[in-house]
Amino acid sequence: MTFEPHGMHLIGGEWKETAQRFSSQPVSGASLQFSEADADVVDEAVKSAEAAFWDYGYTDRHARAAFLEKVAEEIERRGADITAIATAETGLPEQRLEGERGRTVGQLRLFASHIRQGDYLDRRHDAAKPDATPPAPDLKLVQRPIGPVAVFGASNFPLAFSVAGGDTASALAAGCPVVVKGHPAHPGTCEIIAEAIAAAAEKCGIHPGVFSMLQGASHEAGTLLVTHDLIRAVGFTGSLAGGRALFDLCARREEPIPFFGELGSVNPNFLLPDALANRGDEIAKGWAASLTMGVGQFCTNPGLMVTLSGPEADRFTEETADALSKVGSAVMLTEGIATAFRKGSDAIANACGVKTLIKAEARGRNAAPALYKVSAKAFMEDPSLAHEVFGPLGIVVLASNAQEMRAVAERLEGQLTCTLHMDNDDTEFARTLMPVLERKAGRLIANGFATGVAVSDAMIHGGPYPASTNFGATSVGTMAIRRFLRPVSYQNMPAALLPDDLRHK
Amino acid sequence: MTFEPHGMHLIGGEWKETAQRFSSQPVSGASLQFSEADADVVDEAVKSAEAAFWDYGYTDRHARAAFLEKVAEEIERRGADITAIATAETGLPEQRLEGERGRTVGQLRLFASHIRQGDYLDRRHDAAKPDATPPAPDLKLVQRPIGPVAVFGASNFPLAFSVAGGDTASALAAGCPVVVKGHPAHPGTCEIIAEAIAAAAEKCGIHPGVFSMLQGASHEAGTLLVTHDLIRAVGFTGSLAGGRALFDLCARREEPIPFFGELGSVNPNFLLPDALANRGDEIAKGWAASLTMGVGQFCTNPGLMVTLSGPEADRFTEETADALSKVGSAVMLTEGIATAFRKGSDAIANACGVKTLIKAEARGRNAAPALYKVSAKAFMEDPSLAHEVFGPLGIVVLASNAQEMRAVAERLEGQLTCTLHMDNDDTEFARTLMPVLERKAGRLIANGFATGVAVSDAMIHGGPYPASTNFGATSVGTMAIRRFLRPVSYQNMPAALLPDDLRHK
Repeated sequence: MTFEPHGMHLIGGEWKETAQRFSSQPVSGASLQFSEADADVVDEAVKSAEAAFWDYGYTDRHARAAFLEKVAEEIERRGADITAIATAETGLPEQRLEGERGRTVGQLRLFASHIRQGDYLDRRHDAAKPDATPPAPDLKLVQRPIGPVAVFGASNFPLAFSVAGGDTASALAAGCPVVVKGHPAHPGTCEIIAEAIAAAAEKCGIHPGVFSMLQGASHEAGTLLVTHDLIRAVGFTGSLAGGRALFDLCARREEPIPFFGELGSVNPNFLLPDALANRGDEIAKGWAASLTMGVGQFCTNPGLMVTLSGPEADRFTEETADALSKVGSAVMLTEGIATAFRKGSDAIANACGVKTLIKAEARGRNAAPALYKVSAKAFMEDPSLAHEVFGPLGIVVLASNAQEMRAVAERLEGQLTCTLHMDNDDTEFARTLMPVLERKAGRLIANGFATGVAVSDAMIHGGPYPASTNFGATSVGTMAIRRFLRPVSYQNMPAALLPDDLRHK
Repeated sequence: MTFEPHGMHLIGGEWKETAQRFSSQPVSGASLQFSEADADVVDEAVKSAEAAFWDYGYTDRHARAAFLEKVAEEIERRGADITAIATAETGLPEQRLEGERGRTVGQLRLFASHIRQGDYLDRRHDAAKPDATPPAPDLKLVQRPIGPVAVFGASNFPLAFSVAGGDTASALAAGCPVVVKGHPAHPGTCEIIAEAIAAAAEKCGIHPGVFSMLQGASHEAGTLLVTHDLIRAVGFTGSLAGGRALFDLCARREEPIPFFGELGSVNPNFLLPDALANRGDEIAKGWAASLTMGVGQFCTNPGLMVTLSGPEADRFTEETADALSKVGSAVMLTEGIATAFRKGSDAIANACGVKTLIKAEARGRNAAPALYKVSAKAFMEDPSLAHEVFGPLGIVVLASNAQEMRAVAERLEGQLTCTLHMDNDDTEFARTLMPVLERKAGRLIANGFATGVAVSDAMIHGGPYPASTNFGATSVGTMAIRRFLRPVSYQNMPAALLPDDLRHK
């Protein structure tokens, strides 16, 4: 039996309609009607999260782990339906969505095992020193959940960065109820995943306010959500403009709250001379494949390749162009994204000093790969060339020497990743770049591509602004849980009043 | 030989004058002239910090530990001079300043030992899994320093929360150069401490840009400092109005930066029935002593005492009034603080339903303790009664039952601390309050007073807004170093390019 969305919001375990509607825009199948969230349902969802927190915020972490695992199970049970509707809504291929489902349930299970271990609680104990001057009290510290969290899903990962993605998984793991603002590019997918989470909560006997999902295509619901006085933090993945607007709203609140936004990155690559000479062709092919993976719709899409000009760089550029020319146009996540891609690509094509190598026509919701080249000098003179164009677009930046390559690195904004392509003889060259790149990005890669973000303990998916609005945080990997915790210290507190996590190991 | 301030700024190891001046306002001795920072010296100081970062940010942590210890030593060498000028400038007694000096050097040495241990680096390693689907890369993670940090000292701790206080110590420990905006209430003290830090840097062969100190009595220097594009974070202790203004500037930057501000707290106490009956007199005396310690000029001054109305509460209130009436008026840190105290005290005296128990006249820079009482109902109807009045002022809030006491707790803003005074029979009562208090404060105390903040691993000096602008952070204790670090992940990176802290244990 195939899943048919009813178009309602999920609020504290119940499905509710609102008067206003918006239409979904699937690539295949009929457009459907979805309720548009208004002030009343936003308030209801947040109040239900707050009510749930008094219960859920004090649950045993093993109970939360079981809940996360049940969410994974409920998602798997709906696997075929999820793939069907997500494929229709996003145009992403079946296999990709199946892989992404695996990533999503793997992430939920990773957080389950992470909180079971308990290291994330960062428990500390300073024993009393009554004879010290001044006498020191007994102090115990533990990380506690912060309260209701708002999550904004991304369009480009309808499962792994959306309703049950890393933000939701880490907030629920921490002990925080979640209110998701569903992404209007895949509202039916949002609905079926919300249904899975609600089913898991019911089966595990968790307070239904632990999770709500609001549908909406306008900015209003998001604005109402981040300015609601009971929301304690926001997780967001999306555009610089949209993210900055929400960040500003959070900062301007009477009581400001943290906004954890991942807003944009061009993920520069630095191709060093020895690697260029030895493996230029192979790197060109790898780059073209990474650039066009998922129609270039990855946060970690490697948009820039900085190298030293010369015949080897020319050959590398030709190889890349050749590989890209074999990739046809493909459907993007939304028509808006496709339009923005073409506009961004045109702007680069028309910028001073830029030479177009590949640029094919595409219409409607389609995009074809594009490749440009520009001198480092011209690149540095036009900061707009360093801004993300979301989609399959690469720029080769040709530096005349090592100093200029470092100068390019110094001009970069904050990035999710920076990559070095290097062979043994490049080590000294790489050493001059490392301190610069380290200040620019959350993850530094040698000889690989940034697409493919492992979900693990040592992963950082974040970095200086605008890659992230909070350079100390990651939205992928177990460290993501820290965003939704705060340390509390208990002084001379009787054991009966300590949180369970401080009473038992 | 006595120290005589020359009134200059310390910029990257050199003392410099600016054209504009302001006058110090010591309690004893002559007023002196100090340079007022302008745009040029702010820019010079920050650029010198940035230049130093390329060196200092890559120092061995054992070298930084030795530097911090040398700073402590240089402060101790100047001990008598520091006490002399700080006493004259602030009016705080000698013994208190000697204790505070001990706290300051103890803090520097604690951070030295903390970074030597290396746990703060939070090193993680996910080994490559080439056979996994998808194959997992080798990932290593370490916490890296963020770059130049701006620090604003507080007036109330001229040593421990000022030029070489916890913000500076933790930033330097992390590997971040520091630019301090000295507090105009004790500019001579700022100068001698800056001199000690510069001497330590020179003796340890540390880049002189690692530390600068700018004098200034206007808001301009602070504004220029937090909006300088090379500053990566701000540490601040001070008033709500001043702190919020700087927070807003940081949030509105093109590239927003974190502002770690500690802005205000009334540190409510909840006196439960069994403790009131058994130890009311003793708690009254303890409260009066804590309220008037340092003329009430502590961030953790216990301004509110919430208890159940009745004859025992009346007796408690009388005992407190009696103890406070024996404490005379005393000189405050600045005339502005004394004026604000009298204004705040008058406003409470005139608020609806408030009864004045103790309120003595005081003039100029002096303040006398004040005690008020109010019903919980009237307290909750007037939110201004819950705002901090900096100085020796207490309010007894009388609730008619346990529910009302909890309602008072629910209405509170964020606090540095909340305290329970309880005996064995109060445990159940306390249990109803704990979840509320835990959401309000960074530190929960049983049967003690919040004044006296241990500098240790499990201390949190922070909390929800406005106690702190960043509820995940502390400004006291070893965890304070986290504010000035960011995680960086290294993927398949050759050992030669890894930071030293990832190559060696």
